[in-house]
Amino acid sequence: MSDEWSLNPSSPVPLHRQIYDYMKRRIMNGEWPVGTRLPTQRDLAAKFQVNRSTVVYALGELSADGLIAARVGQGTVVANNTWSLLAASPPPDWNRYVTSGLHQPNLQMIQQINRAEANPGFLRLGTGELSPELLPTDQMKQVFSGSMSSRFSLGYSEPKGSLYLREIISAYLQTKGIDASPASILIVSGALQGLQLISLGLLHAGSTIFVENPSYLNSVQVFQSAGMQVHGIPMDRQGIQTESIGRLKRQHNAALLYTIPSFHNPTGVLMPSERRGELLQTCIQERLPVIEDDVYGDLWLDDPPPPPLKAGDRQGLVLYMGSMSKTLGPGLRIGWIVGPEPVMERLADIKMQTDYGSSSLSQHAVAEWLSSGLYEQHLHRTRAALTSRRDSMLAILSKHYQELAEWSIPQGGFYIWLRLVQPVAMRLLFEQALTEGILLNPGAVYDRQDQQHLRLSYAYASLDELERGLLRLAALIRLNSCREF
Amino acid sequence: MSDEWSLNPSSPVPLHRQIYDYMKRRIMNGEWPVGTRLPTQRDLAAKFQVNRSTVVYALGELSADGLIAARVGQGTVVANNTWSLLAASPPPDWNRYVTSGLHQPNLQMIQQINRAEANPGFLRLGTGELSPELLPTDQMKQVFSGSMSSRFSLGYSEPKGSLYLREIISAYLQTKGIDASPASILIVSGALQGLQLISLGLLHAGSTIFVENPSYLNSVQVFQSAGMQVHGIPMDRQGIQTESIGRLKRQHNAALLYTIPSFHNPTGVLMPSERRGELLQTCIQERLPVIEDDVYGDLWLDDPPPPPLKAGDRQGLVLYMGSMSKTLGPGLRIGWIVGPEPVMERLADIKMQTDYGSSSLSQHAVAEWLSSGLYEQHLHRTRAALTSRRDSMLAILSKHYQELAEWSIPQGGFYIWLRLVQPVAMRLLFEQALTEGILLNPGAVYDRQDQQHLRLSYAYASLDELERGLLRLAALIRLNSCREF
Ligand SMILES: Cc1ncc(COP(=O)(O)O)c(C=O)c1O
Ligand SMILES: Cc1ncc(COP(=O)(O)O)c(C=O)c1O
Repeated sequence: MSDEWSLNPSSPVPLHRQIYDYMKRRIMNGEWPVGTRLPTQRDLAAKFQVNRSTVVYALGELSADGLIAARVGQGTVVANNTWSLLAASPPPDWNRYVTSGLHQPNLQMIQQINRAEANPGFLRLGTGELSPELLPTDQMKQVFSGSMSSRFSLGYSEPKGSLYLREIISAYLQTKGIDASPASILIVSGALQGLQLISLGLLHAGSTIFVENPSYLNSVQVFQSAGMQVHGIPMDRQGIQTESIGRLKRQHNAALLYTIPSFHNPTGVLMPSERRGELLQTCIQERLPVIEDDVYGDLWLDDPPPPPLKAGDRQGLVLYMGSMSKTLGPGLRIGWIVGPEPVMERLADIKMQTDYGSSSLSQHAVAEWLSSGLYEQHLHRTRAALTSRRDSMLAILSKHYQELAEWSIPQGGFYIWLRLVQPVAMRLLFEQALTEGILLNPGAVYDRQDQQHLRLSYAYASLDELERGLLRLAALIRLNSCREF
Repeated sequence: MSDEWSLNPSSPVPLHRQIYDYMKRRIMNGEWPVGTRLPTQRDLAAKFQVNRSTVVYALGELSADGLIAARVGQGTVVANNTWSLLAASPPPDWNRYVTSGLHQPNLQMIQQINRAEANPGFLRLGTGELSPELLPTDQMKQVFSGSMSSRFSLGYSEPKGSLYLREIISAYLQTKGIDASPASILIVSGALQGLQLISLGLLHAGSTIFVENPSYLNSVQVFQSAGMQVHGIPMDRQGIQTESIGRLKRQHNAALLYTIPSFHNPTGVLMPSERRGELLQTCIQERLPVIEDDVYGDLWLDDPPPPPLKAGDRQGLVLYMGSMSKTLGPGLRIGWIVGPEPVMERLADIKMQTDYGSSSLSQHAVAEWLSSGLYEQHLHRTRAALTSRRDSMLAILSKHYQELAEWSIPQGGFYIWLRLVQPVAMRLLFEQALTEGILLNPGAVYDRQDQQHLRLSYAYASLDELERGLLRLAALIRLNSCREF
């Protein structure tokens, strides 16, 4: 549960008593209200790094105090605190609140991944982020020591975001062949928030969204939580297949198509120019608006990708999304959506209602990086580093995964979509790896039906870790593919 | 519509042609898709700062090209672009999307206020922000030139926000008598996002939320958009009245009570210690969870406010919210919620799904301000500045509003809740003031039924502006209260 407290082994207070004091305090001050379920004895022992008997002792005392109790089917729960004994009526049933919101909880496996990612101890073989050593943390200082006062404001920003930043992004988009004036650009707190705004602002509950199968979109609940269906469309090596879109659109009355044409998450696929043209034509014909997610577009390794769909969109059919998360740093929480002005105004109004705009510090930082040329320099370095990481990972795979798996060579982005040639008990593999401190991203995160892929990322872990992790993973795969299941 | 383009009066190209070129470009590149409604001729003339005849000329040419057309009941809309003529099928009907999202648009008057606030030209008599001159923009630099590298990370942050920041906020809350460990604190992108997460994560559609009447909460649609009812409970000079809460709770089956005990928005009321006790007791008895919004708590002018409700909450009944917006700068977009740990975990999971956490730059900045003592120093200066601003505003009111209005002396925060003693056509007053460049916050923003209050703020406009604006406002009030309506 808590993520920061730890025992003090050099204290004269016995360990079981430290645990007792800690838990009692959290019960008494209402942080663990009556009804809160405690972790299992085993989990508590692991968390405190003590013997299970120490935990049992502490729990026994709490139980003798009447503060906790065992409940059938629920494990151990908080039963009382002094105040609940004094008060005439029992406290509110938070549990009922927690389970009754409109928003769906994340998939359990995704929650596990989120939690493990917050723990620096794990070796992460599939994480979709640049390694901390590739993020320009120090250079970020320079950006603030310079010209801050002139443009920078600590006030609430305009509904669509800082005009200064939008002007700079407008110029940056021009280099990709996208002609967008600042008024048709909306600054968002990352592309994910852009998707959230679209789900809240433009769609009915019950709408259907088409996505590539597999897709990043299945790893977030943003459309599902707003009551929408997500429907996967098959891919090949050129990206989403366009033939069936028309028929499916009529069948499902789809409201939107979401696509990641450049360095697709999780497959790494780059959609060639011809397929882009076909896709755009199909969507024009079917009057099917498109979300084009281009967060990996700047991370080409061999050659720049073809122009985005948006560059060929003269009808305002495409909502185009970009972000600084995969290049400059996800901590900035800055992305943008580009589309018809009335649509951006609607989304801006909802954004104002949601969080009153994005961090002005972050907006300022991004404007400085883009306008100074520092961003372009950083991309150069990043591409070089990713290219060498990709090549190292490919070398490891060639050496140790020949009979185990198949893969393609990504031309940009972060990912290798590893297809295991033998069936494997994927859930078990995930759990086993986790107990060994290795965090995996199984295919099911991106396609519920998938049982045979892993998303690998060469962007995050160090080369040493990648080698060590992939070796161990190969062994675990061998182990699991022999088992019956 | 657009907020950045302007005519070039020194260009050899005639003005009407510049307007024609500009509008044609936005139609052709899809920023104004077919069906987009254009502003009226009058609004366009005002926007471009030209004679109406110039606009009429430009529109005539666009119409002759077939690009725009008049539609009964809709005004002038975009009718075609070359591509829509070429394409076999018409483009998607974005208008249908824009009007069909789940989320409700902001009240029209609030949208007007938001837009006017983005325009630096307006004299703002009611804006709930510190004046830019009171924000520590320059000092923000220092914070980044110092110890950045050690703790700072550009990566995605933990689900509940930076642990370092949560530890610092835990210590800061201790000074208010709140005992909260970092694990029961969630960092949010401003208090408004905190409310949004609660609405998505803890409540059913159809739930009822109790608020003070009037309340800030009526100026945002966050609960209404999630399908919840907001029900006002009367206030007196000590804040929300507690007698009816029990009866109303049973009648409406309310799910939550939202209160702003310190320097209430919009009335400025400070809830005394005794009323706080009564309110907490009532809510314990009725098992009614409480959101305590304390974003103004640090801005006391005469004496510190009594301890927050949360300081007396041993049951985990209260979700406590704070923010840096009213003290250090809203552009940071950093706030926090404190409550039972299982509740914070649920909200953290939704936050991860919504925007993957708050800006790490902003989180770092807030941690540095709080831990270095700079924040406390800044509060000292801010309190002094606000005290003198409050006193000046009170002096102006005493001099010019004696027969026009009544008010109380606020002991902190930003607001004076001005009650007009004669009935006034409020909407008209608002519009008239707006044409004169004066932006008002009418009472109806905070209570739909209200026709007799204005929220004044001594925090935002300069003293000169406040004097000038209030003088002109007095004249407008006199003018309007004589009229029949
Ligand atoms: C395809 C895709 N879109 C969007 C995002 C989220 O980006 P942001 O951090 O800008 O919200 C990710 C991150 O994993 C992604 O892979
Ligand atoms: C009472 C109250 N709560 C919350 C907010 C929003 O604060 P934040 O900027 O932290 O979202 C405001 C701002 O006007 C407010 O007056």
